[in-house]
Amino acid sequence: MVSYSLSENAYLKIFFHAAKHPHLPVNGVLLGRRASDVVVIEDVIPLLHHWTSLSPMMEIGLDLAKGYAEAQEMALVGYYQASERLDDTALAPVGERVAQKIRDQFNDAVAFVIDGDKLGTGDPALLPYLPQPSTSFWRPCIAQSPAFTTGSIFLLDKADSPARAISLVRDHNLHEKFGDFDDHLEDSQTSSLLLTTMTIVTAFKGTLVHCPSLGQLEVLEDHILLVDHQGFISYVGPAGSEASKEFLARIDIPITTIPSGSFLLPTFCDLHLHAPQFLFQGTGLHLPLMQWLDEYAFKSEESLDNRPELAKAVYVRLAERLRDAGTGAVLLFGTINTTANLILAEAMQTIGIRALVGKLSMDISSRPSYVESSALSSIHSAEEFIDGCRDLVSSYEPHRRLVEPVITPRFVPTCSDELLQGLGKLARDKGVRIQSHLAEAHEAVQWVLSERHKDDIDVFDNFDLLTEKTVQAHCTFLDTDMLSRMAGSCSAVAHCPLSNSYFSEKPFPLREALDLGVPIGLGTDIAGGYSIDIMNSMRQAVAVSRIRDGTRKLSGDGRSLAIDWKDALYLATRGGATALGLSCGVFQAGAPFDAQCIELYKESDKGVGALDFFEPQSGITLGVLEKWWCIGDERNRRSIWIQGQRLDVKNAPKRA
Amino acid sequence: MVSYSLSENAYLKIFFHAAKHPHLPVNGVLLGRRASDVVVIEDVIPLLHHWTSLSPMMEIGLDLAKGYAEAQEMALVGYYQASERLDDTALAPVGERVAQKIRDQFNDAVAFVIDGDKLGTGDPALLPYLPQPSTSFWRPCIAQSPAFTTGSIFLLDKADSPARAISLVRDHNLHEKFGDFDDHLEDSQTSSLLLTTMTIVTAFKGTLVHCPSLGQLEVLEDHILLVDHQGFISYVGPAGSEASKEFLARIDIPITTIPSGSFLLPTFCDLHLHAPQFLFQGTGLHLPLMQWLDEYAFKSEESLDNRPELAKAVYVRLAERLRDAGTGAVLLFGTINTTANLILAEAMQTIGIRALVGKLSMDISSRPSYVESSALSSIHSAEEFIDGCRDLVSSYEPHRRLVEPVITPRFVPTCSDELLQGLGKLARDKGVRIQSHLAEAHEAVQWVLSERHKDDIDVFDNFDLLTEKTVQAHCTFLDTDMLSRMAGSCSAVAHCPLSNSYFSEKPFPLREALDLGVPIGLGTDIAGGYSIDIMNSMRQAVAVSRIRDGTRKLSGDGRSLAIDWKDALYLATRGGATALGLSCGVFQAGAPFDAQCIELYKESDKGVGALDFFEPQSGITLGVLEKWWCIGDERNRRSIWIQGQRLDVKNAPKRA
Repeated sequence: MVSYSLSENAYLKIFFHAAKHPHLPVNGVLLGRRASDVVVIEDVIPLLHHWTSLSPMMEIGLDLAKGYAEAQEMALVGYYQASERLDDTALAPVGERVAQKIRDQFNDAVAFVIDGDKLGTGDPALLPYLPQPSTSFWRPCIAQSPAFTTGSIFLLDKADSPARAISLVRDHNLHEKFGDFDDHLEDSQTSSLLLTTMTIVTAFKGTLVHCPSLGQLEVLEDHILLVDHQGFISYVGPAGSEASKEFLARIDIPITTIPSGSFLLPTFCDLHLHAPQFLFQGTGLHLPLMQWLDEYAFKSEESLDNRPELAKAVYVRLAERLRDAGTGAVLLFGTINTTANLILAEAMQTIGIRALVGKLSMDISSRPSYVESSALSSIHSAEEFIDGCRDLVSSYEPHRRLVEPVITPRFVPTCSDELLQGLGKLARDKGVRIQSHLAEAHEAVQWVLSERHKDDIDVFDNFDLLTEKTVQAHCTFLDTDMLSRMAGSCSAVAHCPLSNSYFSEKPFPLREALDLGVPIGLGTDIAGGYSIDIMNSMRQAVAVSRIRDGTRKLSGDGRSLAIDWKDALYLATRGGATALGLSCGVFQAGAPFDAQCIELYKESDKGVGALDFFEPQSGITLGVLEKWWCIGDERNRRSIWIQGQRLDVKNAPKRA
Repeated sequence: MVSYSLSENAYLKIFFHAAKHPHLPVNGVLLGRRASDVVVIEDVIPLLHHWTSLSPMMEIGLDLAKGYAEAQEMALVGYYQASERLDDTALAPVGERVAQKIRDQFNDAVAFVIDGDKLGTGDPALLPYLPQPSTSFWRPCIAQSPAFTTGSIFLLDKADSPARAISLVRDHNLHEKFGDFDDHLEDSQTSSLLLTTMTIVTAFKGTLVHCPSLGQLEVLEDHILLVDHQGFISYVGPAGSEASKEFLARIDIPITTIPSGSFLLPTFCDLHLHAPQFLFQGTGLHLPLMQWLDEYAFKSEESLDNRPELAKAVYVRLAERLRDAGTGAVLLFGTINTTANLILAEAMQTIGIRALVGKLSMDISSRPSYVESSALSSIHSAEEFIDGCRDLVSSYEPHRRLVEPVITPRFVPTCSDELLQGLGKLARDKGVRIQSHLAEAHEAVQWVLSERHKDDIDVFDNFDLLTEKTVQAHCTFLDTDMLSRMAGSCSAVAHCPLSNSYFSEKPFPLREALDLGVPIGLGTDIAGGYSIDIMNSMRQAVAVSRIRDGTRKLSGDGRSLAIDWKDALYLATRGGATALGLSCGVFQAGAPFDAQCIELYKESDKGVGALDFFEPQSGITLGVLEKWWCIGDERNRRSIWIQGQRLDVKNAPKRA
């Protein structure tokens, strides 16, 4: 038989709550955990002091309380209430419903009604209710021994809690200072504060760096950043502000101080990566695109489809490499086989990286053994993967679901019209994102033109594959009109500057596309690009843009075509996130906490990794940031968090 | 008083030598070391068996023997001879001279003359000679106790060595197999073998990779590479060849096996690096060249000239970073101050990197506090540095001198005609190399044109600064005619592709220049380029060339403008070395052993550093080499040797 032990802390809070509102109905929830046969009630969260029904506000309060409890590694274990009239000790129907809701999650839930007659006596003033077996009716607990006496299943952790409660109220008026959820809702200035503080599980103090928009790099020195139990950012503000001070005064979790030579930065987004090609990263780069696809890409993809164990090894390693490189979200091309793509999705979910996984669709191929047998079977297979991928994460709470399926026609030359049409419809029906390659190489563009008498972009557009949910890789051969169409359709570009050198042999008109408003992020294009590191993509994007700008200058044209390192950092973080429809990539309340901690120096004159400093440094200046951008590497990355969860990166300091 | 202990090994060899040529004069040298008051004679090197005077051959033999001894951490500690007639126990005048030469280096040298009467008796058959105090006359050592008896200062390590020697000669004819230097000189096929084996101090067995010429990459599997005591490569050949077998049979040093996942590669050459700008590596890259020079470059150079301690810190760190990046030779721009440049030269010599150090010459500047006061004082200062730099290394043996001075007019805009003329003359007079910047940026080219009504190249040419000893950085704005002039004058180009993106904003016409025969190597151009790693320069050079080739293809022109990774590897090693007039960069006999050991995998399916392998690997294939070229980094570099000396790189395995 289960017994119940009530801590002094919990008893005092219930007592104060009732004492503060003697003529109003008050209620709240009990927090604790079950240890063997004892339910230990450690704390309470006071909710309301005027209620008649199960209001939306009570629902919100319950939800927040549940989150808070979980963050503290406790559960909601019960409910308490006091009635309007002190002599009314009935558990109200609303209370019964709340208690029952709690019981759905915690089978040994209990409810207490405050016994007004005993409030001033020094005896325990709580009347326990338990549910009747096999019903949802709650009744006072009638047992041999009265509650809170020897032999009872209800015990006070400290026997003198009732006397102490009376003294604290009478002699010290402590109940006056006691607030509940209602109080805060009445006080509009602090209500959001309460909503927030109740759920905060992680707090940082130090320098934050992010790029909220193109051309804007903010170094937020000495800031507070709070993360809630679901991994969302609750609050960002200067440590010295009134709001920050109030938060810090109310939360009782340890604050993580970011040292002066380190900063938090949003994680990187990689908008284009062929997961199976990681198998042969950095080889075969001497061939032109179509030949390379045949000799390297298709072959390796097929081998992974045929060997699930190999697929798993490659995908797990890929996920680890991405994590270590600070990539928090990645848009992936997979293979044609559903199973292998589910292995890919699972690897990303397990390591903890946000991944948009595209099962490849292709019913035309130069490799007879690596092609889908018909448009119909390809579409069916795509649908099967979408369902399978969603299934894979259905058991997680929504905010913990890190992978999602993406419709992925490989590129126009490998897809029949029938297939493209079917995929367009499937994308609409299932509400999923779309990715493909667009105008990557001269030979591919010419191929499409000669086969279909149309440009890539028209083919995609015809079949509703150019939408606000689309990301197209490369786009190097798009002219200004076509880029305007991309902007008009809100389709994004995955800019892969390194791969462009090899397989487009042409720079992407990045500045023009940005100026037209095309959403753009960076991609590594493993293995068309050999580097998995988005920092490399950033550096390459700037270098290429500067050469383009040099040509522009010599020709005397007006507007700069260059981007600088800050622009590149935007593309790598917020730009990429926006293109993927994700709300990460920036430090603001409501965004998921997807971040990396970058360490530039430990001692003020000694850099970390490739960085050298010969003069004492102070804080995070634009100068040291630029240096890191230029030559920093994995060795500077000490932590990474996705949706508030910390992942162990390779160069993480040892945890305490 | 010093005593002498003779090992059995030494005694036997002397005995065999005399026994093999009973009617000829034989001689040789004693090897050993002094330990407290005992000269321990551990070994001998037999030299000749027919001599009458101090011949060149004896000189060569002595020299080789000395090198061998030092490599074994021993010294030449004496001399031995047998006369033509067995009853002649006089130390011949030639023997006295040789013994005296040895004594010049080792004060306690001894000479032994073989006592023919005792050869067959089982008694020690050696008559010791020592020099008479304060003279160069050597006399038999007359002491209370006869040599090799109790109380004598001459002892045999093993008392039965004489008896054992007789038995080995009589019963086993071991002396027949005994050869000396003379034997090998008589046998022309093996004489070079002996010359070689006598001086070998390091031997490797495994895979060597090098690029002897542009477009040629050789993977030399299972090869033997031998390095002599001066750090030069003595021999390279397949392990299975007769020559290799003969070498291996004769050398008695341990052979270092390069594991199957590793290989030796020549070290990289960096043809353009501003040492003082390492201070601010990776910052300020948003400015155009002339403004950047003023705001960043001149300022930092001046600060190092004013603060020798800071200069030392920067230069030592730079040298360490270069070493860890596999750069074995570097052509450096310094500052204008002689002292600071000597600090730079010393840092490189001390760390052990080959450095061509250029004291900057500039009598025109946008920064009033950072300029030389006149052409004359600038020329004087350049000369002073040349002498100082040569002085710095004069105490080293020639092959250990790793630094040399280079005439370095900064670039045309900062040098008066008078200065350039003076520097041209100084370069001729002193026989030193020349470096500068040529046609780097549009604004610089225009500046020179408007100031002097000439192109950079004409200005340099006019003043004899465009010679076969010249390396010009960048050259991005040279047209085909000008590149032909470079080829014609045998002046080399330091191609700095990353820096080109920022400060030239234009790619260098690399392929055209190579086709014209211009000597070309790669440069990092710290801090106009932010990366100190020549691997980055290689990657950038290929990426840029491919985009150029794409443009060429679209315009329908004929010949490819692309280079591939193998071409880049040539430029980074042999190409760079050739441009610097160095004989390293290739594995061939006679070249200095400047090499790096690159580890790709330890276990056959587990890569090192950034490399991932998912299938078992075997040996060093082009595939794994390309992967390393693409994504390898410092973590793959396990050792580096310059002129045969091993330097401790950051990722070196712990030494035994």
